[in-house]
This record gives sequence, structure tokens and C-alpha cells, in this order.
Amino acid sequence: MIPVSNDIFRNALDAMHIPNIATATIRQIAALAAHLQDPLGEEFVHLEMGNPGLPASPHGIKAECDALTKGVANLYPNIAGIKELKEAGSAFLKAFFNIDIPGRCIVPTVGSMQATFTLFLLMGQRIPGKDTILFLDPGFPAQHNQVKLLGLEQRSVDIYDCRGEKLEARLEEALADGRVTAVIYSNPNNPAWTNLTETEMKILARMAEKHDLILIEDNAYLGMDFRRRYGVPYTEPFIPTVANYSERCILLVSASKIFSYAGQRISMVCMSQAVADRVYNALRDFYEMPTLIDAYIYGVLYCASSGTAHSAQYAFAEMLRKAVEGVLDFVAETREYGRRAALAKKHFTDNGFHLVYALDGDEPISDGFFFTVGYPGMTGDALQSELLRYGISTISLPSTGSRQEGLRVCVSLLNTPEIFDRLGERLSLFHKDHPTG
Amino acid sequence: MIPVSNDIFRNALDAMHIPNIATATIRQIAALAAHLQDPLGEEFVHLEMGNPGLPASPHGIKAECDALTKGVANLYPNIAGIKELKEAGSAFLKAFFNIDIPGRCIVPTVGSMQATFTLFLLMGQRIPGKDTILFLDPGFPAQHNQVKLLGLEQRSVDIYDCRGEKLEARLEEALADGRVTAVIYSNPNNPAWTNLTETEMKILARMAEKHDLILIEDNAYLGMDFRRRYGVPYTEPFIPTVANYSERCILLVSASKIFSYAGQRISMVCMSQAVADRVYNALRDFYEMPTLIDAYIYGVLYCASSGTAHSAQYAFAEMLRKAVEGVLDFVAETREYGRRAALAKKHFTDNGFHLVYALDGDEPISDGFFFTVGYPGMTGDALQSELLRYGISTISLPSTGSRQEGLRVCVSLLNTPEIFDRLGERLSLFHKDHPTG
Repeated sequence: MIPVSNDIFRNALDAMHIPNIATATIRQIAALAAHLQDPLGEEFVHLEMGNPGLPASPHGIKAECDALTKGVANLYPNIAGIKELKEAGSAFLKAFFNIDIPGRCIVPTVGSMQATFTLFLLMGQRIPGKDTILFLDPGFPAQHNQVKLLGLEQRSVDIYDCRGEKLEARLEEALADGRVTAVIYSNPNNPAWTNLTETEMKILARMAEKHDLILIEDNAYLGMDFRRRYGVPYTEPFIPTVANYSERCILLVSASKIFSYAGQRISMVCMSQAVADRVYNALRDFYEMPTLIDAYIYGVLYCASSGTAHSAQYAFAEMLRKAVEGVLDFVAETREYGRRAALAKKHFTDNGFHLVYALDGDEPISDGFFFTVGYPGMTGDALQSELLRYGISTISLPSTGSRQEGLRVCVSLLNTPEIFDRLGERLSLFHKDHPTG
Repeated sequence: MIPVSNDIFRNALDAMHIPNIATATIRQIAALAAHLQDPLGEEFVHLEMGNPGLPASPHGIKAECDALTKGVANLYPNIAGIKELKEAGSAFLKAFFNIDIPGRCIVPTVGSMQATFTLFLLMGQRIPGKDTILFLDPGFPAQHNQVKLLGLEQRSVDIYDCRGEKLEARLEEALADGRVTAVIYSNPNNPAWTNLTETEMKILARMAEKHDLILIEDNAYLGMDFRRRYGVPYTEPFIPTVANYSERCILLVSASKIFSYAGQRISMVCMSQAVADRVYNALRDFYEMPTLIDAYIYGVLYCASSGTAHSAQYAFAEMLRKAVEGVLDFVAETREYGRRAALAKKHFTDNGFHLVYALDGDEPISDGFFFTVGYPGMTGDALQSELLRYGISTISLPSTGSRQEGLRVCVSLLNTPEIFDRLGERLSLFHKDHPTG
């Protein structure tokens, strides 16, 4: 029955040991939805999980099976990464970002989740007194948890009301005391699907120089700003990156979304040469390895998991190579998410919802993997709870570090016309039950 | 030329940025050996790396390729582990240890390296004031680094001179102030290849109860005490484990050595139900998840890498299943290491070396993956350096937390008669150049 009653909903929260929906993890929300499926009597519409909704790249699967058959499973992978991956990664960065990062500065990790976890740890060590990670929010909730788990401090700037030139003053405020060691942001942004403008990237670069920061740019959704035609190798327009404006950067490139390869947990950390080779007294003292990249690979990653599954590295290398060769057009393949977003947005806006993060500069944001919506007179948490009763699971914006009231919607699992219909019907029912005036 | 000169050796140390061989990591030693290959003019004998020297289990490879082909690469694996692995793991523990741990208490990790890294973190949080990990040394050097990296305290008991009943007093001394939260040890021991006796396991169990400890038993080499015929499913003798004497334990079972599957970085954390379900105020406050297992899976592992490569979980599940069915006799397959150890030990003892850790109770230790040797009048570090000049790379005992002077020898890469000959010739040359009296 839709909606399920408030009693049933509260009992489900209790049964799942979720005292506070605002701080529940995405996995807990997914589990809660599974629990509510029975009383609902129909399939949930899952807008909370960021699972790729496309099949994995067959290039990757073939390369991975070939590597396994040839015999890599018994050998510890080089922690610095297999040569093939490092070289293919370097070529990929050149072909699509038009930037130069040599293979030796590229290191595979167990997904970008391991990348940020381990990088945050190192960022907290490199200069005594710099113990704070600054988030350009909204962002990926798990990264906030990582910083907390590591015992580091964190600050957050919600870009909602400081886009463009206004960003500089807000950053200066957050950076003034010198405690910040690194800035993390995703581009396109998870969950707002905003893209930093050239103006904003230049401000970040200036701030990095002025305050001795490292900029960690999470390119989980690279090329998925579908307003431009990115993704043609060695051809303009190139994908924007702060690496064009600053040497003080580390780029994260994950196979999870661009190649729909999330299950194999493979990503790469790409350091500028300046970041990689910088020598720190603190790292020399602690690791007996003075350069950041050595401390990262042989100090941190060695301890964290002794490297990344051998066969997955071959898969990633092959997919990167095929992309560079123009055989695997990952931007065209992921454009499907843009189509789904346009349809889903219409269902929401037709039923009283509005986009929360709506513009990059003067330009409407791209359609893509995520978007954000609000509903008049409801907080994000209340809206999230209420939509769960209607069989729609999302995550709330406050849980992403946003100060705005609303929800993150992920379109990846909207993969049949029936699910879209179901979404439309339930939103319409919700709208009818919650008149906006 | 063998030996290479002291000048060349010192230059190589400088070139590899190794200020102190005593604290160099295994990977750095391997890199140093590669660097010395040229002046040596011949292949190195690698006794430092713990790479499996056998091919990966074909059961695992087939299952992994099948899973990839069926389509798991695009789906985030369940962080708690796929059902198949949890169930096969539970059956494996019953068949070979004769213990009962349900699937829900079994969680895959990116190798046991990730297991100890993440468990140490949680051990440091569970009870305020308990911030110290106790090592039964010698041990795996990387685990000491992990504790340091996490900002926890560590203590070490070298079992060399406190075997049997003597262990209790030494443990009491280390535990008296209540600061220790967990004890870590490997069985068979890396590097000494000792096995704890029943007496010693009972002491550990008593101490765990008395001092509220969690015992982390690293079974990386399980079944490889070749003095008994372990590894026949559901048949005595069962592999000894502290789980027979204490509920306060977590067992680590890695695919790396028993199935020669190190490249795919897959292991499992097996918690007793008592450990898994215990509720802690500190975990409720920090994670909003009161039980240890929930905090571990959804709090720590989620942050560390969001799970373990999907296909590797299918491989591990299948190998565990085949072992339980008696189709994959992993103990018989790894017995090859025992054969190699017997041969290698003879080369060492014929040339003036002695075994450092030699007995379990009154019984000579088993032949297996590792053994330890010393040489009259030489410290471990000096011996390690000197043997490098003779084209033999090892790691020193002090780097493993041992207070004894000597080396760890790993036999896994001694896989041809030629390499054994080379080892014998070089040891003989070394012995001639270093007369013992």
C-alpha cells in the first residue's frame, strides 16, 4: 500500500537500528528500502545508490579474464601499479584533459574510496599544524566520514551561495588560519552536478599557492558534463581540470562510473610531478621516505592493502587504452545518464519540486548522474523520510554537507520505462497529499 | 662479480634512498636487490619476498572469469561480503578448524593487510583508554607499521625465551596496566615458523578473559605445519586455533598463501559471534552503530575501500568450497614449501648458520614457508647487508620485532634446482670469507 503508514515506517527505522535518518549511510537507506518493500507491496524506486546502471565495459572484462588465465593471480601486484596501467593512465590524461602527468606519478587504488582515505591520512601528516581537510560541499558523504575516522579536522564551504568570484572571499575565510592542508571536491559535483567554472578553478589555484594547499579533484564522473562534447581523444574541447591552473593538485580517476566498473574497485591517483616529488621533513621523519609519492605508495598504500587486485589493474589499463584509441567512447556511453536525468527532472518539477543547485555561472547545469531537488516547506530529512513512505529512496542534502534543504537524486537505476512510470505516479500521489498552497 | 664491493653496495643504498637497512621495507629490499643485479652479473637469490611460489588455484581463476563474464564488474559488491563467500567461509572453518562461525560474522577484505589495518583502527576505538596493540613477535613487519600509522601504541613480547608456561608471566607484565586492547600473532608464525602449543593457546585465552582483550589470529599459512596431516575436511587432526579456547577472537584467513592467490588481494575476517555482537558505547557514539561487526563493516570497511573486488570474492568462495569438498587439497599443494625449506635449511646449516627459532615445546619446528637463521658473531642487520653483497636478499630479524640476531628466510621463490645450487655456492663462498673460528 502506498504510502505505508507512519507506524510501519517508524517500526522499520527501529528494526534497522537507524536512530536518525539524517546521519544514516547510503547503505543503511538501501537496507531500509529493502525492509519497506513488503508493506509497500511494490518495487521501490531506488534513487539513493550510485551503482552504475550500465553493463561493465566488455574491454575490461576480456582483459581481466585474459590476465587471470595468463597467470597473475598468484603474484603480488606492484604497489606502485603495473606498468601498463601507469602508461595507459598517463596517455588517458593527455588525450582527454590535455595534461602531462607521467606514469610514475600514477598509482592504482582500491577505488577512489581508498584513494581519499589514504590521501587524507597523508595530507594530515605532511606539514605539522595542517590537520584540516576543506570540502567544497555538497559532496560525497563518505568522504566526511573518512576524515572523521582518521581523526582529522574538517571544514566545509557550501558552494550554493558563493559561485564565481564570490568563492574567493569564502575560501579566504576558511583558509585564513593556515590549518587547511587539502581541498577536496568532485567535478562534476556529486550530488549537485554543478561544474566549476574557469573563474572558480583559477581561484582554487590561487588559494592553493597562497595557502600551501593540495587540491584533490575527484573526477568520478569525468566527461559527463553533457553540455559540451568531451571525450574525443586528443581533440578540443578538453575536460576542464584545475591541473590547467595549478601544479598543486592530485586528480582521482575511477573506473567505477566512466567504465561502469564499480564492482572491481579500481581507480587511479594521479599526482602532478610537483606534488609527487616534493620533499617533506615530516615524511622523512615518519616514513624515512621524504617525497610525498614514496611515502604514499610504500608508506600508506602498502599498509592499507598492499596494492590493488592484479587483474583489475589489467582491466583498467585496457579500458583506458581503448578510450585513448577512440574505440571505447565512454562519454557517449554514459550520455544515457543525461537522458534519464532529463526525464526524471521533469517528473519532479511537474509535481511541485524545484532544482536546488541549478546553475553554473549563468548557465543551467548539465543533466547527468545526479541532480538535487527540494519541495516547498519541507526539510531535506523530512522530505527523504516522507518519500520513503511513497516507495522512493533518496539521500538528503544535509547528509552531503549541503546547507540547503532538499534531496540528492541518482538516476543510474532508472533503467526501464516502467520505473519511470512508477516514479511519476508516486510523485504525483505525494504532490496530491502534500499541497504546496 | 660475487661479492660486490662495499663501495658498490653503499652507492646502491644511497641510490635507493635507504638510509638504514634495518628499517627498510621488504619492497625496498627487493628494489635494492634489483639494483644490485647489474654489478653482481648474475640473478639474485630472493629469500625476502613472501610471494607465493606456486601457480594460483585454477578453481579460483575459473570462478573469477565466470563471475566477470556473467556480469558482476559493474555492481558494487555488498560490503559485508557476497553470500556465497560468507557461507563457504563458514563451512571451511568447520571442516578444517572444527569451529562454528556463522556466515554473517565473516567479512571479506582486500587481503589480510586491509584486515589488520582496519581492525587495529577499530580495536583502538572500542574502549576508551585501551589504545595499545600487543604483538607476539617475531611477526610481519608491516603490521607494526600499520599500528604506528594509525597513531596507536604498541608493545611486543618476543616469544623466543618465553615459550610454554613461561608465556603467562611475560604476558601479565605486558597487560598489567589494562592499556592493551588486542593481541596479534600469526600461526604458523611469520617468520619463525613456530606454532603455538595448546598450553600457550590456553594462556592466551585466559589472558583475554582476564584483561578484556581481543585475540587476532592471523592464519595466513593455515595448515602448513607439516608435522601433522591437516587439511582433510571434517577429519582429525583439526588445525589448532585459539578459537577452541576463547570466544574473544578474530581469525584472519587469506587466500594469498593457501590458494596462491596473493595477486587478487582477498582474505576474510572471521569473528566469533561474541566478538561480533558485543555492544560498545564508544562505537554507538562514534558510528551510531553499537555492535562491533556493524561498526567494522559499515563504519570502517566502507570508508577504507567500499568493499573488495567482486570477482575475487567469487574466486575465494569457490576455492573454499572446493577445499571443503575435498577436491582442492591445499595442504598437500603447499607441502612443496616444506620440501624447499628442508633443502634450504641444509644449505645454511652446512655453511656455519644455525636456526634461531628452533623448537615448539620440545619438538623441532615444522619445515614451511619461512625459517630463521643466524651466523656467529654477526648482527641481523650486518648479516643481511653482507649477504646482499653475495647476491642473497633476506630480511633481518630485528625488523620483524624479534630481539634475536638473525635473518628471515622465505623459501617460496626457490623453485628450480639451479636456484638451490646458486644458494649453496654463495653461502659456501660467504662462509669461506667469514670464518667462524
